[in-house]
Amino acid sequence: MKKIRILIVLVALFVTSGAHAQEQAQGKVYNAETFTLQNGMQVVVIPNHRAPVVTHMIWYRVGAADEPRGLTGMAHYLEHLLFKGTATVKAGDFSKRIRALGGNDNAFTAQDYTAFFESFAVEHLETVMKMEADRMMNTNPPPGDFTSEQKVVLEERRQRTENDPRGFFSEQMKALLFVNHPYGNPVIGWQHEVGALTWPQIQKFYKEHYGPNNAILVISGDITAAQLKPLAEKYYGPLKPIALPAREWTSVPPMIATPELTLHHPQIQQPVFMRLYRMPSLKENKEEGYALSVLQEILDGGAATRFYKSLVVEQKIATDANFSYDGMAISDGTGWLSATPADGVALDVVEKALEAELRKVIKDGVTDQELAEAKQRMQDSAAFARDSLSGPAMVVGQSLASGLTLDDVEYWPQHLDKVTKEQIKAAAAKYLDPDNINRRPYISGYLLPPVAPAAPAEETKPVNGAKQ
Amino acid sequence: MKKIRILIVLVALFVTSGAHAQEQAQGKVYNAETFTLQNGMQVVVIPNHRAPVVTHMIWYRVGAADEPRGLTGMAHYLEHLLFKGTATVKAGDFSKRIRALGGNDNAFTAQDYTAFFESFAVEHLETVMKMEADRMMNTNPPPGDFTSEQKVVLEERRQRTENDPRGFFSEQMKALLFVNHPYGNPVIGWQHEVGALTWPQIQKFYKEHYGPNNAILVISGDITAAQLKPLAEKYYGPLKPIALPAREWTSVPPMIATPELTLHHPQIQQPVFMRLYRMPSLKENKEEGYALSVLQEILDGGAATRFYKSLVVEQKIATDANFSYDGMAISDGTGWLSATPADGVALDVVEKALEAELRKVIKDGVTDQELAEAKQRMQDSAAFARDSLSGPAMVVGQSLASGLTLDDVEYWPQHLDKVTKEQIKAAAAKYLDPDNINRRPYISGYLLPPVAPAAPAEETKPVNGAKQ
Repeated sequence: MKKIRILIVLVALFVTSGAHAQEQAQGKVYNAETFTLQNGMQVVVIPNHRAPVVTHMIWYRVGAADEPRGLTGMAHYLEHLLFKGTATVKAGDFSKRIRALGGNDNAFTAQDYTAFFESFAVEHLETVMKMEADRMMNTNPPPGDFTSEQKVVLEERRQRTENDPRGFFSEQMKALLFVNHPYGNPVIGWQHEVGALTWPQIQKFYKEHYGPNNAILVISGDITAAQLKPLAEKYYGPLKPIALPAREWTSVPPMIATPELTLHHPQIQQPVFMRLYRMPSLKENKEEGYALSVLQEILDGGAATRFYKSLVVEQKIATDANFSYDGMAISDGTGWLSATPADGVALDVVEKALEAELRKVIKDGVTDQELAEAKQRMQDSAAFARDSLSGPAMVVGQSLASGLTLDDVEYWPQHLDKVTKEQIKAAAAKYLDPDNINRRPYISGYLLPPVAPAAPAEETKPVNGAKQ
Repeated sequence: MKKIRILIVLVALFVTSGAHAQEQAQGKVYNAETFTLQNGMQVVVIPNHRAPVVTHMIWYRVGAADEPRGLTGMAHYLEHLLFKGTATVKAGDFSKRIRALGGNDNAFTAQDYTAFFESFAVEHLETVMKMEADRMMNTNPPPGDFTSEQKVVLEERRQRTENDPRGFFSEQMKALLFVNHPYGNPVIGWQHEVGALTWPQIQKFYKEHYGPNNAILVISGDITAAQLKPLAEKYYGPLKPIALPAREWTSVPPMIATPELTLHHPQIQQPVFMRLYRMPSLKENKEEGYALSVLQEILDGGAATRFYKSLVVEQKIATDANFSYDGMAISDGTGWLSATPADGVALDVVEKALEAELRKVIKDGVTDQELAEAKQRMQDSAAFARDSLSGPAMVVGQSLASGLTLDDVEYWPQHLDKVTKEQIKAAAAKYLDPDNINRRPYISGYLLPPVAPAAPAEETKPVNGAKQ
């Protein structure tokens, strides 16, 4: 029932409102307070006193990328199992109790982290903290619940992957891009491996990774650090730190050629071109990461920016054209390029048009006006993030769990403001050049309706490409 | 100096001479004798008394596929290190001593096994056995030799991979076909991982995998089992068995789409089309493995068989057209389809012609005459294998190390004789059908000269394929 949500869109929230930023021009976005318990648990408080409610999030610095070889899906399955009971809370009762308090809860697993969150009236804070502290260390699902949850997880996979050609296709694109890297495995796990997992295997993973010194508590809402500290010490303070394994992951070797993946499938109505790039994450290279974030906005920041204006409005060859950069990762980040052709337009036409747009940035750079407008939009467009209850906790938690510091989050507008045209041009040339055969860490995907069974010969176009 | 030789061609030797087979119609090919020492070491003797010489081979049931994640290249590097000394044989002296006896030696590493061999006059057998037993347990390279050998291995990799676009390209094809499977890693290892290996890491692997109960001794030549047994007991018998880890490897998940890999490279003069398939190995499915072996011979068994006759002689669109099946593997086997187009012919033309030939086999099957001739050729063409000194040891050792039994080798002609037209048709339909979108475990590769920089527009053909 709990869902995997790989928060690749969260970076869009990772900004502040224009008004707020101007008020605090040299100041912090969230004015978060932070302290660390003696057992190593980091705590962040984001005060918001508009209503007597809080969002309580625990971010564990463990995710699918930490799974042992051959045991994929374990981190996500374990996330489900944290709802399946301890000695004092029966299987399924965790969420029931939160709902009985008038709150709601959920959880998600990604490559780098696993997070659990609840939103509720602040008066229930101690009840929730007690329950979260309990399941951090004492999860022990009854065998029947372990087995039934395995079916739930496999059904979740079937719905998102086996029964969804686009999901299945994306999974394979990631696998072929992230060769020899844990990000090449799906967060939900390979079906045959998830289906074979046992509780002793998952329990070992749980004992190795779940503990206060591998967790970040982020609370946003009607509370201050001074108020929270004694509670955190009372409920989380007694938990013993664990011996943490190093997070050393394998990496992608250089590859000489660019792969293409083509799928004709009866469930695909509308062709789509997509290209997935490996790029530095913000953690790996902040300067390039900020530049790629602004470049995303310049290419695909609305109807007046390059991709939409050129492919949809002027050339009329596509119904959409997108680029998104996801820099929130402990290891490599990614970029997705995609477009849906207009009726009757071939996929390689939109592919070539996107490449032409990339070449323009690489050759001529972007304008002062584009740069200024993009920065302004990035600050304006997500005003809601600062003002919502759970949004800031989400942004701060994800950033910390992705290897950034609290200052990186607090001074995000200032970092964006420093991005120059030269940095954008250089990042585009380094990571998006379609003509640099020595460095093309990407894969192209062509998702297509089924091949027409009996088209007249003169209308048939080559399907797998004319290679010469 | 020692070389990796992945013996994908050895299956061609894995037959007997026609005359010999007829003499022993219901008999064994090699008349090998076998016994097992008390410590678990298997011994096979293939008598051949034509000259007073022997080939001594030790096959370890460990290879690149057994390497821990992130430590690729370890099995092959260890093979090199077995020439770098023990307490009683100085680094480099092993091969020197063999040469001083008038013999020669070498070694090779594959995914499933590692083998060391020497050929020499039988009078020196005890000397060689003593040295092999010593390095099985006592290898301990001086630090300087460990480091210098790392440079040798990296240089070996550079020559075969980084400096050879075809080798580099093939490595990537295997990586993209064998997703989540150790066969996706190159035997020589990923460059950045080989360069980071340390002796303590390799020594752990050595202690875990090198021992008498993980070794097969195969001796061919002027000796009998009765003569060898006391010597084997004397030299190998005292070695203590080791606790062997299970050989449990991860496997390839189902994939929805068929990848293509294209490379335009200045060092490529002549375009090549290739397609790599995953198929059952002989160990995984003997009946299908035998059928695929005969199918290989029918498709690509010489100038009078289907591929050459059709593409080269009749259609004149290719200068060669090949299919080879490699069924010698503990896990999945592979099939390679490839063709070189004639001057001016596009790669997709030869690709489509190969696919048309496959469709013919799937639709109409093969003829009685083709089947009979293929079986006869397979028996006739490798008469030398039985008669050479080292050939039979190579075939027997590789077969046992690939999970087959001595009887599988001894009765190979009888197994081939039983293959039917129906089995061949069924195997082709199951593994080679280009039109079955539900089961296409293959990757297609297009290796091409550099793109011409300024061809006139009307002569330019699409390079990355026209997708619609």
